[in-house]
Amino acid sequence: MEVTRQNFKDSLKTVYSAIEEADFLAIDGEFSGISDGPNVSALTNGLDTPEERYTKLKKHSMDFLLFQFGICTFKYDQAKSKYIIKPFNFYVFPKPFNRTSPDLKFICQSSSIDFLASQGFDFNKVFCHGIPVIGKVEGLFTSSEKTLDLEPCTGFQRKLIYQTLNWKFPKGLHVETVETEKKERFIQVCKVDDEERKRREQQKLEREQEEVNDAVGFSRVIHAISKSGKLVVGHNMLLDVMHTIQQFYLPLPEDLPDFKEVTMCVFPRLLDTKLMASTQPFKELITNTSLAELEKRVKEGPFKSPLVETAEGFHSYDTGQEQLHEAGYDAYITGLCFVSMANYLGSFLTPPKPHISARSKLIDPFFNKLFLMRIIDIPYLNITGPDLTPKRDHVLYVTFPKEWKTSDLYQLFSAFGNIQVSWIDDTSAFVSLSQTDQVQIAMNTSRYAESYRIQTYAEYIKGRQV
Amino acid sequence: MEVTRQNFKDSLKTVYSAIEEADFLAIDGEFSGISDGPNVSALTNGLDTPEERYTKLKKHSMDFLLFQFGICTFKYDQAKSKYIIKPFNFYVFPKPFNRTSPDLKFICQSSSIDFLASQGFDFNKVFCHGIPVIGKVEGLFTSSEKTLDLEPCTGFQRKLIYQTLNWKFPKGLHVETVETEKKERFIQVCKVDDEERKRREQQKLEREQEEVNDAVGFSRVIHAISKSGKLVVGHNMLLDVMHTIQQFYLPLPEDLPDFKEVTMCVFPRLLDTKLMASTQPFKELITNTSLAELEKRVKEGPFKSPLVETAEGFHSYDTGQEQLHEAGYDAYITGLCFVSMANYLGSFLTPPKPHISARSKLIDPFFNKLFLMRIIDIPYLNITGPDLTPKRDHVLYVTFPKEWKTSDLYQLFSAFGNIQVSWIDDTSAFVSLSQTDQVQIAMNTSRYAESYRIQTYAEYIKGRQV
Ligand SMILES: Nc1nc2c(ncn2[C@@H]2O[C@H](COP(=O)(O)OP(=O)(O)O)[C@@H](O)[C@H]2O)c(=O)[nH]1
Ligand SMILES: Nc1nc2c(ncn2[C@@H]2O[C@H](COP(=O)(O)OP(=O)(O)O)[C@@H](O)[C@H]2O)c(=O)[nH]1
Repeated sequence: MEVTRQNFKDSLKTVYSAIEEADFLAIDGEFSGISDGPNVSALTNGLDTPEERYTKLKKHSMDFLLFQFGICTFKYDQAKSKYIIKPFNFYVFPKPFNRTSPDLKFICQSSSIDFLASQGFDFNKVFCHGIPVIGKVEGLFTSSEKTLDLEPCTGFQRKLIYQTLNWKFPKGLHVETVETEKKERFIQVCKVDDEERKRREQQKLEREQEEVNDAVGFSRVIHAISKSGKLVVGHNMLLDVMHTIQQFYLPLPEDLPDFKEVTMCVFPRLLDTKLMASTQPFKELITNTSLAELEKRVKEGPFKSPLVETAEGFHSYDTGQEQLHEAGYDAYITGLCFVSMANYLGSFLTPPKPHISARSKLIDPFFNKLFLMRIIDIPYLNITGPDLTPKRDHVLYVTFPKEWKTSDLYQLFSAFGNIQVSWIDDTSAFVSLSQTDQVQIAMNTSRYAESYRIQTYAEYIKGRQV
Repeated sequence: MEVTRQNFKDSLKTVYSAIEEADFLAIDGEFSGISDGPNVSALTNGLDTPEERYTKLKKHSMDFLLFQFGICTFKYDQAKSKYIIKPFNFYVFPKPFNRTSPDLKFICQSSSIDFLASQGFDFNKVFCHGIPVIGKVEGLFTSSEKTLDLEPCTGFQRKLIYQTLNWKFPKGLHVETVETEKKERFIQVCKVDDEERKRREQQKLEREQEEVNDAVGFSRVIHAISKSGKLVVGHNMLLDVMHTIQQFYLPLPEDLPDFKEVTMCVFPRLLDTKLMASTQPFKELITNTSLAELEKRVKEGPFKSPLVETAEGFHSYDTGQEQLHEAGYDAYITGLCFVSMANYLGSFLTPPKPHISARSKLIDPFFNKLFLMRIIDIPYLNITGPDLTPKRDHVLYVTFPKEWKTSDLYQLFSAFGNIQVSWIDDTSAFVSLSQTDQVQIAMNTSRYAESYRIQTYAEYIKGRQV
């Protein structure tokens, strides 16, 4: 279903009930660009820490716009032994909805735009008929509703939201924590009563009310997903999650632990099919984990294509055909990949089970781990806990003149057998030695070198923290 | 005529002949945004020098995209006593035309996009079918043509182009000045012969050749305008000129004098209708010089609407009707305003002349002066010479705590009668006194002040140059 400003209100019930009845849902976003840096590979280093990677993505990718949001809901029909799916394509655009709303600027990358154009993407649906969006919390303050209840959260999440609200809305705002009958604590945000200003603004506000309801509209879809607690599946979904939070919720927190907390507020249960496909027992079976290749791979043995039926009234996709690269379709095939891989896990049970539900314990190990692209030794970002801290004591940080090439590094370390080079910039790189005990020898050899300098990874990290 | 990638080649002849036969032409650009700063007014100060203004516009406005270029050619038909017009709307987009071409990033401002959307702008024509563009000079280096002859230029212009070429293409490039039979000197740029690389690349290049020809295509339209030497009319056209040069020609020069030189290379004769309408004898007659208002104003006495006929095969605009805000239409009404104002000048002749041609001496005083928005005492940028340097010896530069408001400044200078405040930032402003001899008194009074500080404008400028 294509959803634009024109049919957004009428579609909301359909969206809500699709989410409510689903066993799980898959999401995908289309962006106006991917990386605002000189180039992606120069920005992502193979030995980034998760903190560094988060900071880089936040700095270089968040100025792009998420302008198409795809959701495909999957509901298992026991009687028919097949999934009933409902795919949605939301076109979203941050239309300034009145004169006081911020005039958002976003970056477009001509390669991304051109790619979408070549796939027949309809830009008018975004720019002319996109569903207006303003962050959920911001929405409140231009509406005449006096209070907004946020979802129940942990104490730390509440602290975070307090901070953000205070920073964005220093005045005229009352934030307090309220307890539900079920003893859940949630945050209530109230506008401070200011009788005089209120009277003057009342009329204006009423006129704007309807527009604002539309405007916070798309955030409501995200809210419905959060509230449902349903499993949300995506492919290589870290950027999708970051953009969703940033654009429809709250500005991204400064630090990684805070980002994890907010993510759990917005998406309580996530599964990344790229990470799943890169992990045992799939790793051995799947050589190329890009979405298009993965989708082809899981159609062949030992995987089985699940039976799927498109719900009445929804556009039916055919994976056999060349398809538009649209978010709803990508969400759909992401869901298919998930089902095929999950069902494969059922073949190890005694007796084997052909269908594994989204609630099965078998998929628990894949929850809330988001694939980290091009990091050598940390496969995923762990949203619900501390990240892996692989030993990097075989890694050297080397600085040198900018004329050096990879071959110079190979030559320098030629005595040490196999090495792996991860460029940082023109004049520095990480060099991973194959044996840790070589590190001390390399350090000793370098002591009197003038053209280059070597530090251990530990020294390098220490130096950065100062 | 709507021109996209699909009909660009077939339209080129029509475009060239329209330019060739025209008495003058009007241009207008539509951008993806206007100002990348916190807000326009904070960026433009009423006492900016022309240099400062150029630097600010270059820094904060050039990351937007010019994606629709309007040209309307005007040819006077003596027999019919009317102008025959040919309006063109070019949709242009910097599609990366192969894997080595730069992946351009551009900024969109949601207010600008939304404004165009509300006027029915067709974004698919830009993003899906936009005429690809690469700078004229850059185009060469991906094409297999070996040389490119630039237009005859002055020595200084040649120096400029040399510098730019050396900076952008440090290697593999030979630049020399060649003389024509008519003793005009022009620059010839050659790729250095590198036999080995050439052979390897030959095949690939040939395949790309056609694409490149398309790609440099839109720059050819600009080139045709330059070569024609025709009068080019625009409304408040400084940004249009800057974007045109930047996007279709060469990166904008660092300094204002160099920008002026390049501008004269690209557009040898310019006229800005906003500047014309703000100057004697029009100033007294025209209170609002915005394009839409000006267009209405010159339909009434003492102005006369010129007779205009749209050439066969071109879309005919009706100024009586609410119109799409498209570049071709805006160019058209800009041309109409110019004709009405020029003809009004004819009424002062004895005997009065109802039609004044684009070649008339009467309009010479308006040539090559581009309107400067919101500068109090410098109405225009003088492209063909030094700028006006108004006396600013009644101006004070005042710094103060950021809590100060305009009223604090009025109070501080309450003894001096009328003052004019031009905010620079939170903690500084220019204050213009009504009498120059008050400056010394103000300076004396401030000597022992602790919360604020006053400098004369001359001291301020001197301080900045250090
Ligand atoms: N001095 C030097 N720097 C390099 C070399 N290769 C890569 N780099 C630097 O490392 C950065 C990342 O390189 P890489 O990961 O290979 O990605 P790339 O930028 O796509 O080539 C580059 O942007 C350069 O600054 C080299 O051979 N010599
Ligand atoms: N301290 C102080 N700064 C001001 C005041 N008014 C304007 N400014 C500063 O001057 C800049 C330009 O202001 P102005 O030209 O009025 O444009 P504006 O930004 O659209 O209000 C603002 O961005 C502020 O930094 C004021 O009353 N007090």
